[in-house]
Amino acid sequence: MKEIDFTRIAKIVNELEESYSDRVGVNLTGEEMIPRRDEIIAVTEKLLEIIFPGYQRSFEGAGTAALLIDIQSELSNQICRAMRRREKSTCKCASCSASCSDNGDCGHAVYKLLEQLPEIREITKLDVAAAFAGDPAAANYDEIILSYPGLKAITIQRMAHVLYLEKVPLIPRMMTEYAHTQTGIDIHPGAAIGKGVFIDHGTGVVVGETARIGDNVRIYQGVTLGAVHFPKDACGMLIKGNRRHPTIGNNVTIYSGASVLGDITIGDNSVIGGNVWLTESLPEGTKVTATPPENRRKQMQ
Amino acid sequence: MKEIDFTRIAKIVNELEESYSDRVGVNLTGEEMIPRRDEIIAVTEKLLEIIFPGYQRSFEGAGTAALLIDIQSELSNQICRAMRRREKSTCKCASCSASCSDNGDCGHAVYKLLEQLPEIREITKLDVAAAFAGDPAAANYDEIILSYPGLKAITIQRMAHVLYLEKVPLIPRMMTEYAHTQTGIDIHPGAAIGKGVFIDHGTGVVVGETARIGDNVRIYQGVTLGAVHFPKDACGMLIKGNRRHPTIGNNVTIYSGASVLGDITIGDNSVIGGNVWLTESLPEGTKVTATPPENRRKQMQ
Amino acid sequence: MKEIDFTRIAKIVNELEESYSDRVGVNLTGEEMIPRRDEIIAVTEKLLEIIFPGYQRSFEGAGTAALLIDIQSELSNQICRAMRRREKSTCKCASCSASCSDNGDCGHAVYKLLEQLPEIREITKLDVAAAFAGDPAAANYDEIILSYPGLKAITIQRMAHVLYLEKVPLIPRMMTEYAHTQTGIDIHPGAAIGKGVFIDHGTGVVVGETARIGDNVRIYQGVTLGAVHFPKDACGMLIKGNRRHPTIGNNVTIYSGASVLGDITIGDNSVIGGNVWLTESLPEGTKVTATPPENRRKQMQ
Amino acid sequence: MKEIDFTRIAKIVNELEESYSDRVGVNLTGEEMIPRRDEIIAVTEKLLEIIFPGYQRSFEGAGTAALLIDIQSELSNQICRAMRRREKSTCKCASCSASCSDNGDCGHAVYKLLEQLPEIREITKLDVAAAFAGDPAAANYDEIILSYPGLKAITIQRMAHVLYLEKVPLIPRMMTEYAHTQTGIDIHPGAAIGKGVFIDHGTGVVVGETARIGDNVRIYQGVTLGAVHFPKDACGMLIKGNRRHPTIGNNVTIYSGASVLGDITIGDNSVIGGNVWLTESLPEGTKVTATPPENRRKQMQ
Amino acid sequence: MKEIDFTRIAKIVNELEESYSDRVGVNLTGEEMIPRRDEIIAVTEKLLEIIFPGYQRSFEGAGTAALLIDIQSELSNQICRAMRRREKSTCKCASCSASCSDNGDCGHAVYKLLEQLPEIREITKLDVAAAFAGDPAAANYDEIILSYPGLKAITIQRMAHVLYLEKVPLIPRMMTEYAHTQTGIDIHPGAAIGKGVFIDHGTGVVVGETARIGDNVRIYQGVTLGAVHFPKDACGMLIKGNRRHPTIGNNVTIYSGASVLGDITIGDNSVIGGNVWLTESLPEGTKVTATPPENRRKQMQ
Amino acid sequence: MKEIDFTRIAKIVNELEESYSDRVGVNLTGEEMIPRRDEIIAVTEKLLEIIFPGYQRSFEGAGTAALLIDIQSELSNQICRAMRRREKSTCKCASCSASCSDNGDCGHAVYKLLEQLPEIREITKLDVAAAFAGDPAAANYDEIILSYPGLKAITIQRMAHVLYLEKVPLIPRMMTEYAHTQTGIDIHPGAAIGKGVFIDHGTGVVVGETARIGDNVRIYQGVTLGAVHFPKDACGMLIKGNRRHPTIGNNVTIYSGASVLGDITIGDNSVIGGNVWLTESLPEGTKVTATPPENRRKQMQ
Repeated sequence: MKEIDFTRIAKIVNELEESYSDRVGVNLTGEEMIPRRDEIIAVTEKLLEIIFPGYQRSFEGAGTAALLIDIQSELSNQICRAMRRREKSTCKCASCSASCSDNGDCGHAVYKLLEQLPEIREITKLDVAAAFAGDPAAANYDEIILSYPGLKAITIQRMAHVLYLEKVPLIPRMMTEYAHTQTGIDIHPGAAIGKGVFIDHGTGVVVGETARIGDNVRIYQGVTLGAVHFPKDACGMLIKGNRRHPTIGNNVTIYSGASVLGDITIGDNSVIGGNVWLTESLPEGTKVTATPPENRRKQMQ
Repeated sequence: MKEIDFTRIAKIVNELEESYSDRVGVNLTGEEMIPRRDEIIAVTEKLLEIIFPGYQRSFEGAGTAALLIDIQSELSNQICRAMRRREKSTCKCASCSASCSDNGDCGHAVYKLLEQLPEIREITKLDVAAAFAGDPAAANYDEIILSYPGLKAITIQRMAHVLYLEKVPLIPRMMTEYAHTQTGIDIHPGAAIGKGVFIDHGTGVVVGETARIGDNVRIYQGVTLGAVHFPKDACGMLIKGNRRHPTIGNNVTIYSGASVLGDITIGDNSVIGGNVWLTESLPEGTKVTATPPENRRKQMQ
Repeated sequence: MKEIDFTRIAKIVNELEESYSDRVGVNLTGEEMIPRRDEIIAVTEKLLEIIFPGYQRSFEGAGTAALLIDIQSELSNQICRAMRRREKSTCKCASCSASCSDNGDCGHAVYKLLEQLPEIREITKLDVAAAFAGDPAAANYDEIILSYPGLKAITIQRMAHVLYLEKVPLIPRMMTEYAHTQTGIDIHPGAAIGKGVFIDHGTGVVVGETARIGDNVRIYQGVTLGAVHFPKDACGMLIKGNRRHPTIGNNVTIYSGASVLGDITIGDNSVIGGNVWLTESLPEGTKVTATPPENRRKQMQ
Repeated sequence: MKEIDFTRIAKIVNELEESYSDRVGVNLTGEEMIPRRDEIIAVTEKLLEIIFPGYQRSFEGAGTAALLIDIQSELSNQICRAMRRREKSTCKCASCSASCSDNGDCGHAVYKLLEQLPEIREITKLDVAAAFAGDPAAANYDEIILSYPGLKAITIQRMAHVLYLEKVPLIPRMMTEYAHTQTGIDIHPGAAIGKGVFIDHGTGVVVGETARIGDNVRIYQGVTLGAVHFPKDACGMLIKGNRRHPTIGNNVTIYSGASVLGDITIGDNSVIGGNVWLTESLPEGTKVTATPPENRRKQMQ
Repeated sequence: MKEIDFTRIAKIVNELEESYSDRVGVNLTGEEMIPRRDEIIAVTEKLLEIIFPGYQRSFEGAGTAALLIDIQSELSNQICRAMRRREKSTCKCASCSASCSDNGDCGHAVYKLLEQLPEIREITKLDVAAAFAGDPAAANYDEIILSYPGLKAITIQRMAHVLYLEKVPLIPRMMTEYAHTQTGIDIHPGAAIGKGVFIDHGTGVVVGETARIGDNVRIYQGVTLGAVHFPKDACGMLIKGNRRHPTIGNNVTIYSGASVLGDITIGDNSVIGGNVWLTESLPEGTKVTATPPENRRKQMQ
Repeated sequence: MKEIDFTRIAKIVNELEESYSDRVGVNLTGEEMIPRRDEIIAVTEKLLEIIFPGYQRSFEGAGTAALLIDIQSELSNQICRAMRRREKSTCKCASCSASCSDNGDCGHAVYKLLEQLPEIREITKLDVAAAFAGDPAAANYDEIILSYPGLKAITIQRMAHVLYLEKVPLIPRMMTEYAHTQTGIDIHPGAAIGKGVFIDHGTGVVVGETARIGDNVRIYQGVTLGAVHFPKDACGMLIKGNRRHPTIGNNVTIYSGASVLGDITIGDNSVIGGNVWLTESLPEGTKVTATPPENRRKQMQ
């Protein structure tokens, strides 16, 4: 039979199954469950609908409650999966394999998040205003809400950050990675971000796990708020979770391509120029520009 | 009842509704309508189908007319929403709340766009040829059309630019932001782009609202054609709409990571090297390279 | 009739059709078929499901065989289209216009790919381990598999590379461009990538067609492994396919924003600092850092 | 241009639009809105999910509240459309054109329905038990819930009947017509149906608007509970809404193909044989069988 | 390998392929194409949208032209498939394998249909009025358009009939069978149906290919307008296409379950009672009722 | 808060949950799983694709194997659910809660079905031929396969019957009920059906669980092959599973509306006229017609 070569296929299946059975951690072939990426994305979009009502589809009054309960139900299911995956036997959601009818513990973090949504909305209004004040191309608030990637990335991160603080596994990062995919802006859910923050264009921006960003900060494309060293423990394993990223003060502007690295502090009202490479703290009100490389010009024939 | 805590949910709904009622502009909770992102994306993909027939799905002869009329109908509905949102009472589409049966004014810009499609196609052919001529990895035209992000970003921008010139609100930027999401290339719909332009790889490219790009220009990833200062008016508000981005001549190449900033002019046939930081005009035929930072090497133990 | 202006539409259709008929290669208006982007994406996601079973949806035992046969069937159809498009009359798939019942030749490359999946999985396990060992923010393997863009981009490229070596037209690049769209990481399917490779954050990374990357290499966002010159033949046409990208040794780390350009060799165990611009080979064990541009600071008023 | 004949199309569009403009009531070309069939079906399926939890998809605890609020929101929107269509200016939902934020009046009937769901569930349990007791082919309750059309048709009608009593326009009939499409059983939403009712096979069953069916009634395929005359008023118009269908007592069985017509009463515990044609009332405990037509047999050559 | 038994599967595939290769006509394994059921359904729903604008989704002015062109394009493709299947080499659509760019011949029937839509709409208005006048349960026109199966079945048949008269193969019957599936009403596309016709409830109604129905006819559920004998030719094959079904005059009412069989004529203004079995013509103004079978009653203990 | 009345909703949720907790069998609120209707429908459509290749979508050679393995995988998962639901602790599929990796027992019935598909196809060819020979309106085989409901209903029943004989719970009936929904033809999966059987029009046809139909039988709409009494056991419970439906010999024709009831035998070559009511066996070659009720005619004024 020429159409499909069952012998070849069977051999590949056998080899794959052997590969699946060693359980080094890149397969989930038994009954374990893991948060589903498509569900996380769906919930994230619903959360954005709460924050920006009417911008994705026409607003319906009673819809807010329905959306919240929907989010509560779906997100706690996913958290349940994430927690159960981490803790297996110790999960308090006894029945969360198929359905999660008592999602007490799993639901806790969701309520925390839902309860912060009104405050996040207030902060987000400041973000929108900051974008309008900071970009001559921004015609009005609508345009910012509908098409500015920085606003989307920050808003998603603000919500993921609440879950991060509640020590929800896996899901906060899945949320910010969704934002990364959509915007090219990669903000770790651990970062603490102030009010009225504006990231313009944003592609290539990286903000590390322990970074802190003050109020009214403006950041351009390609900026990294990263780490310099990764200390290891006695066994040569990376020490995880320690502070290793910068703290940015209020009213700071960081132009495109700048790298601000390590556990340093940038004082309030500072300005960091394009392509600056900075590994030391700056006092308040400092303006730093990179000496541009001397451009060599020649006239072409 | 442990499953859902209605008291908590009700409290959150109340707070959100309070937040929704202040109308600072990040909510659309009444009857206003706004262009829908999913519709704009759908129309944009249909426009690409007109430009590259047969590349998304098999070409059907009569399909061109059907596609055009479809676009005419859907896009003018969305424009109607955008115009109504901006002007509210002054919109000429009397009945555009639910249906836009007399979309005269709204439809005008769509016809402008449709009528330029044949010309955009001719220019796009030059873009494809430029990509083929400029990239040794490009095996043939098909590959460029099917998988080069620069071509997609530029083509979408060319169409959004027509609507921008017609002063359609919101939608041109939604179109280019869709391209940005897909490609990492952020070209403002206001930019004027010549023929035979090729953006390779493209991630991180930013082209500002008042930038002008000549014919046969080649641009690599991470290039910014940006602004330097944002002048403010007497009240401290940004002045919007003034010229603040560079003009790039014909046959210019700009290598990766270069920043070309401000209302300057790069003469024809110039070459701007990787990572160059440029805030001054260049005469025709200039080649500029950044003095590379002296690399400090040491042999590791 | 004010609603739709048939005269205008008819005129545009005529012009478009004229534009379609010149056949310079940006239209497929006859019977030709071309690989479909949505199918390529679907197959790519199924291949990822084979590599990371259970991470997209719950794993089902018998599903592996079904998935493989599905991939075999769909991917060989698409390859058939790609080959037929390239070779037209010389395609061995006699009947591949509507159905590809004898996809002998087209199916060959698919079997090659399927047969390498177990080995790719073993390499991928090393990639996951490398990410865990290299990123303090990585909490566990699950997080890496679910949300690290570098892993996704590299894994897709590994599979596209098998098809590239089999000289399958169009499709390998469509696969890596899908990864580019999702991750901002643009690795040409021609690149040869070793084991245990980790790309962190990744936005803006570009890896050229003839690049070679050793084992245990770590790469950060914005790194380019690119070309310097594109030699042309006597007729002024680019010479395609020649070696023009770097070879990176084992255990090399390349920090963010570095550009490594040309057919050079970076010795094993080297470290290339952030923003380094490198166009010459490095011996084994070299550490290179860019002299940072002297930052000029001033205290703002 | 041979592909599409714009002249012909334009002529047809003109004629259609003329036909649309006379407003005799088979077009909705202005801003009016009408309940949407797809929404009504979706809500109906969600209501069934409340009644038979876990039979359509896996049951999730918190899901009940989310489903109820969803139904409340969507169904009151549709009712709002239906009421507004009927009453136009008198609708109390001031803002229900685009969104129905104050759906007080429209929401009232939905609450009525939701509040009866627990009771409908109790009645439905009796229906299931009646099917099990009445059909030797029924293996267990699951089979009845998953695959008995009579149960589906009756349960949908019970819910539509609540809305009918609340004088909701259009929607009750759309719900029962959905059941008709799915099952071939056409029960008017006005009919009053007792507990423990079982319709077997069901195709062709018709139950009229003013019919009343007692408890524990069993009905087979092709049974009509219909009207005989339709009295007209002085102007020759049908008098609408008067009683014209039978009242069936408790514990009655009606075999396939029987027609029970007019405002008659069938006493408790009666049995109506197959194909019986009945236009007169029956006292309690009557068994009626049609004299079968004398079958004429002949032996064929 | 226990998961999938490739030997068994391979054996079944072999047997199926053998079964596929005999070409007795229940397989299409080569390149032939056949009209696609899902496309026919989609086109049918679009045609209904033209007839009842605004009842399925909100009406958009320019949408009529777009819908018509859409229908023209899709339906002529399907007709092209149907004709090509029938005639193979003789089809005038030279290139209709993959795309049907010159669908002259195939498109002809579509134009015929489109051009009759305005007239069909006028007739349909009479059908709606007839339903309102004939059913005391009909509250208003909206209810009839939204939820009366008879109207849907007749309207689809009217459109299929135009294609039937144009001798389009396969598709007319696929359209009426779609109506049959939705409504339980099976009207052959060959039947000729007058104006103001109303089928109430409708389940089980059968109307044969050569039946003719006059104006203002009312028909109830379970009515058959069928044939009695099927004459065969000399070879014992059925003679196809001859007249064999009844002609129903104007203003006739046929009550539920009646069978009217053979090439007979029912005069104007006649009434045929429930369950009547009729194989002979009736003069104008005849009322026929079946002697009801004597019902045998007994009092049950 | 007027928008949603949480107190009312909470009360309804409480009542529903109370109703859910009594477990009389119309709720599945714990971890139990049940076959999913949408999956059963999807598998049924795939099985039809195996039987009629190319009629739903274009046939792809390698597709047969992929389809079979797909069906094997999905259907055995559903059977696993059905068996586990029935037997709970005794199910041999130890791990079938989330995934059914060892679906030995569950998969057994699927293989039985798959292995009979070639034979079912051969029988189906005879069914198609019988329809062509028996209906003057049937233009060709294609029309029958694409649009004859009887063929669809019988073919689905033939496949469900194989699972029924393997004692698969729930699923066979779900398959035939899907056919019932689509066609109005309700054939119990237990019925044994011969070759070359043709059901014309079909709406309202009912064939009981223990019915047997010979070869070359023709059946019209509204025919019932049903039961007369349902004997009960000593406890008053229906005795399930006993023979209670007719056996129809070869070459029998049963015209529309006939009822053939009880465990009787209709001899070969018999003809049963329209509306005949038959509760006794018939010898071979008998023709039975109902004495038509004397039609009373009167001339209307």
